[in-house]
Amino acid sequence: MKAIVKSKPEPGLQLCEAPEPEPGPDEVLIRVKAVGICGTDVHIFKWDEWSANRIKPPLLVGHEFVGVVEEVGREVRHIRKGARVSAEGHITCGHCRFCRTGQGHICREVEIIGVDRDGCFAEYLAMPADNIWPVPDSIPDKYASVFDPLGNAMHTVMSQPVAGRTVLITGAGAIGLFAVAIARAAGAGNVVAVEPNRFKRRLALEAGADVVLDPADEELAARVLDASEGLGPEVFLEMSGNADALVLGLRLLRNGGHAALLGIPPREVTLNLPELVIFKAATIRGVNGRRMYDTWYQCQSFLERHRLSIDTVITHTFPFAEYAKAFDVILGGNAGKLVMFVDGA
Amino acid sequence: MKAIVKSKPEPGLQLCEAPEPEPGPDEVLIRVKAVGICGTDVHIFKWDEWSANRIKPPLLVGHEFVGVVEEVGREVRHIRKGARVSAEGHITCGHCRFCRTGQGHICREVEIIGVDRDGCFAEYLAMPADNIWPVPDSIPDKYASVFDPLGNAMHTVMSQPVAGRTVLITGAGAIGLFAVAIARAAGAGNVVAVEPNRFKRRLALEAGADVVLDPADEELAARVLDASEGLGPEVFLEMSGNADALVLGLRLLRNGGHAALLGIPPREVTLNLPELVIFKAATIRGVNGRRMYDTWYQCQSFLERHRLSIDTVITHTFPFAEYAKAFDVILGGNAGKLVMFVDGA
Amino acid sequence: MKAIVKSKPEPGLQLCEAPEPEPGPDEVLIRVKAVGICGTDVHIFKWDEWSANRIKPPLLVGHEFVGVVEEVGREVRHIRKGARVSAEGHITCGHCRFCRTGQGHICREVEIIGVDRDGCFAEYLAMPADNIWPVPDSIPDKYASVFDPLGNAMHTVMSQPVAGRTVLITGAGAIGLFAVAIARAAGAGNVVAVEPNRFKRRLALEAGADVVLDPADEELAARVLDASEGLGPEVFLEMSGNADALVLGLRLLRNGGHAALLGIPPREVTLNLPELVIFKAATIRGVNGRRMYDTWYQCQSFLERHRLSIDTVITHTFPFAEYAKAFDVILGGNAGKLVMFVDGA
Amino acid sequence: MKAIVKSKPEPGLQLCEAPEPEPGPDEVLIRVKAVGICGTDVHIFKWDEWSANRIKPPLLVGHEFVGVVEEVGREVRHIRKGARVSAEGHITCGHCRFCRTGQGHICREVEIIGVDRDGCFAEYLAMPADNIWPVPDSIPDKYASVFDPLGNAMHTVMSQPVAGRTVLITGAGAIGLFAVAIARAAGAGNVVAVEPNRFKRRLALEAGADVVLDPADEELAARVLDASEGLGPEVFLEMSGNADALVLGLRLLRNGGHAALLGIPPREVTLNLPELVIFKAATIRGVNGRRMYDTWYQCQSFLERHRLSIDTVITHTFPFAEYAKAFDVILGGNAGKLVMFVDGA
Repeated sequence: MKAIVKSKPEPGLQLCEAPEPEPGPDEVLIRVKAVGICGTDVHIFKWDEWSANRIKPPLLVGHEFVGVVEEVGREVRHIRKGARVSAEGHITCGHCRFCRTGQGHICREVEIIGVDRDGCFAEYLAMPADNIWPVPDSIPDKYASVFDPLGNAMHTVMSQPVAGRTVLITGAGAIGLFAVAIARAAGAGNVVAVEPNRFKRRLALEAGADVVLDPADEELAARVLDASEGLGPEVFLEMSGNADALVLGLRLLRNGGHAALLGIPPREVTLNLPELVIFKAATIRGVNGRRMYDTWYQCQSFLERHRLSIDTVITHTFPFAEYAKAFDVILGGNAGKLVMFVDGA
Repeated sequence: MKAIVKSKPEPGLQLCEAPEPEPGPDEVLIRVKAVGICGTDVHIFKWDEWSANRIKPPLLVGHEFVGVVEEVGREVRHIRKGARVSAEGHITCGHCRFCRTGQGHICREVEIIGVDRDGCFAEYLAMPADNIWPVPDSIPDKYASVFDPLGNAMHTVMSQPVAGRTVLITGAGAIGLFAVAIARAAGAGNVVAVEPNRFKRRLALEAGADVVLDPADEELAARVLDASEGLGPEVFLEMSGNADALVLGLRLLRNGGHAALLGIPPREVTLNLPELVIFKAATIRGVNGRRMYDTWYQCQSFLERHRLSIDTVITHTFPFAEYAKAFDVILGGNAGKLVMFVDGA
Repeated sequence: MKAIVKSKPEPGLQLCEAPEPEPGPDEVLIRVKAVGICGTDVHIFKWDEWSANRIKPPLLVGHEFVGVVEEVGREVRHIRKGARVSAEGHITCGHCRFCRTGQGHICREVEIIGVDRDGCFAEYLAMPADNIWPVPDSIPDKYASVFDPLGNAMHTVMSQPVAGRTVLITGAGAIGLFAVAIARAAGAGNVVAVEPNRFKRRLALEAGADVVLDPADEELAARVLDASEGLGPEVFLEMSGNADALVLGLRLLRNGGHAALLGIPPREVTLNLPELVIFKAATIRGVNGRRMYDTWYQCQSFLERHRLSIDTVITHTFPFAEYAKAFDVILGGNAGKLVMFVDGA
Repeated sequence: MKAIVKSKPEPGLQLCEAPEPEPGPDEVLIRVKAVGICGTDVHIFKWDEWSANRIKPPLLVGHEFVGVVEEVGREVRHIRKGARVSAEGHITCGHCRFCRTGQGHICREVEIIGVDRDGCFAEYLAMPADNIWPVPDSIPDKYASVFDPLGNAMHTVMSQPVAGRTVLITGAGAIGLFAVAIARAAGAGNVVAVEPNRFKRRLALEAGADVVLDPADEELAARVLDASEGLGPEVFLEMSGNADALVLGLRLLRNGGHAALLGIPPREVTLNLPELVIFKAATIRGVNGRRMYDTWYQCQSFLERHRLSIDTVITHTFPFAEYAKAFDVILGGNAGKLVMFVDGA
């Protein structure tokens, strides 16, 4: 089969032939129809420090997808051949304390497809049946292929109530944009997005932000206070991984406010904790992956009922064969989410 | 001044002359501009069993209003003459355990204006300064006059998260209709309203319900399950005070679901608790009044930012002098919320 | 093997020979060491209306146990032969919305051992590996055999915070007594137990209740108020299934208080909901089974560290062969929890 | 009257004559009986950077006390002359969004007695009636004088459930020791205290810690894991203000764990947020002051019912006149809480 592979410990990715995976007794084999490209894939493409430490080539990359079940393992119940499915890409141990208490998203033995084992940028993929997410017909492939990053955004937004509250979102990459759309759909008071890239700021407006700001804007703090009763936002969602954005958001956060951190900042961030957290009695939550499977049900509920508009967030689609062009577009910076259709490979 | 008064222990209300109230040192005097008519006022009008037990004539009725501060008591800080205001009509003791822990809405010494002491269907009203709610210019009188019942609905909807969840609402009177609009604005999956009156069912649709059902519909249960993944609604809001509606909603409620009861059912309701509550691990919350003042801030947040459309819920407006006609319309059944403008008296 | 069996649809149970179960590929075979007798077993013994509707003889009864793994199915990982184990007796479907979101305790396809399929009053038992609970050496068989009802109590107590709060518990059967001990260990302010049986009232005191009351006591309400700052208990745990106890507890419950219902009342209970729930803004939670597996971890945490004294609750132990005597003692009423040791069969 | 005063912007404090305060119409005058010495008082004594920026001499210091009401302002209801009282030392504005929603502890206009206005190290003190806390007879002066720091500890411990969970506490000063005792009383699984001072480590054991560790212990991490199922503590309470302790606690915290920060670290702490917060999906809460007045009710509930042993934490008592000696003892490091009795002045 065709697959996009990190074949050597160096920058770049290759579209090449790879053996079809064989599903184990608890697994299903999926013919992939469409995939989303994640920032993680870009890190692996660039072969940055994180990738060099974590990835063991050769590896089939990719973890966001939708496809069709082609084959069902011997022990699998409740999934039938022909079902259209996506899947949770975090494969958990299933028997640790976290897995046994509905907290699989923080299992310490997790394996991530496309990172720790072969991924979905391929014509076929084998996945544990427990991870499979059947997709209703009403959700098109383009949206179903990005359940994973939409789930990151959903998990982050749903970490605290947003209805009627002002929500500050730093970073308008694909997940930040999804978060804007979700916060809007979930009844946020004002949604304020902060993003340096002009193209993405425009996407944030289209996704439903009420106020969109350049971090270079000298009036930024005043504008955020204007949008939040002069007290600062009640909710702050950090989606950029930028240390300055993190500090900015915590500084603006209202006393008693809630912050959820999904973006991965540098390993060393210096914080004035008394001012940013303690005296203001802030609550800060680290967010990792998606709740299994509450987050998936939430995403489905919004998408299925057309409560959530993510169409403008998916700015580009490509056939699989043009993956190089797709990565070029991402590296150019002026993109939201990119989806590749495998049928076109 | 002119005022609508229950002067004797018998049905009916009179528009008559009454002395202007004098504000105490901790109070303000308000010139009333517009008032909402509540179901409670209708009970008092009809002089039903509850009224006969609770109300001590003579009494100025009414508790929903907006007005302008005319005079400020000696000890009052932070409220200025000329301010446009509404007010929380539950006057709490201020020093009991409930009041001291942010739970004034369940203070056992509460006095309600228009019920336990003179109310707002009058040209002037004196209120404790602590109860005053300043109204921003962006919220017109018509909406500001119904902060109180809108707050009942807000308190009920906000008793549990609704974003992405199916919400069943029984009873589409004014508060039920407000609840429909709020649930919709707060990102509910589907909003299903059950209401016997055809006129009110149409109002529920206009307020944002996705599915509107007559309780006489033999397919009702199936239709509710259709709208809720076959599992029943995750949230049930009882706004009718009807015992059958209460039982219906609890029966349909999803395992693990949340019910909030605002409607006042008869004193004796027979429940199959094992089936309706225990085996399904339901959570049921009684709802009383409005959170002081979280609920008010929430209402304001939605109204001020035009996130909430309540215009269609306010079906009729009358000048104060035509109060008899207003009560007639309500008693006729085909009405949402009625507002009277005092300036027209 | 020897087993206690409901062989015909009539009162009574027989100790007789039954074939050893054979574990499936996902199951383990357990040699049973000790079992607890539950009220449910007594219902089945007596063959009351509930049993006659639910139980399909012949059936091996019992669902509380500790034993040793004798054999491990082909697909089972993470459980080894020789492990000492108990197990969650609710066997869930594993793939429904409830199971996929950490809410297996409300799975609608649940099968209960000793009720819907063969149980543990036998020398051997086959159980799905997913349900197995490994027991640390520090917890003796006598305690490990009652993880299940202790878990019911833990689930009920942990439904709301109890630290520093007055907790009213109605019903001092085994689960009520466990609840007393847990509430005490979890830092409750006062623990007040209401129980008509004098023997059980004494057990409640031994388990850690601060105040123990006979429901016939005419001063009961005053005594409960005395123990709860004159405002009523903040937490009410209904463990008796008695309708009067339920109403009593809700009436005494403090405004804003929390009730958790585990006892199964008759199908028709008449409630004054305005007074008991709505005006006081009470929260009522139905409690079913045990959280999988949060509740088990909680029980283990308390037992393993000797934070919880349940020794006085287990009033009698019998060898398996004397099961008839054990049921006699229970039917006599003066008993807490009874444990039977199978080795003695 | 006699009072302990910071008379000039320099190290030291003086016991001198000061005019008796006169209570305003909403205030009461209190004759002080006993006071606690806080770390804040020591900062002011030493005249460190924080004090030099915040304190405007001359100032009567001190904010922890118990006394007797001597005089009652004209507008005060519900407090009678002769009542024994303590008081919340944070005087809030009463009308901002925080104050109006039960969050006075994060009012941005707060004034703290002994810091922003005259305090309680004096024979008499005037306090707003709203801040007064009546003390039941069953709580002796020695304990009632330290409601304030006990409340800091209570607020911190109660920020998340601790029953059955392992709680790590860094810093065994007076507030850390109170937290140890509270966590123990509230049913924590294991309480692990980390403290460099040997004397305080012994106090932590006496207060109820299960494991007490020196941060210099090379096996510290292993010992904490031993006490927490190998997964790390579920709850981490930072009470030291030491940056290394903060990082240590966050590193050891279990995935999905809860941290509450009360200690004031330096303004610049460098954190590896991906590892310490994000990937482990930790929740971190800043803690400020005491909940008004939930925390006070909680403290009273535990003290009144003798559920909480704080006697060993109060290591020294002095007559007021020996304040210099008291500060010497604190500066020497080998002390828990110090209380001064004013009657002895």
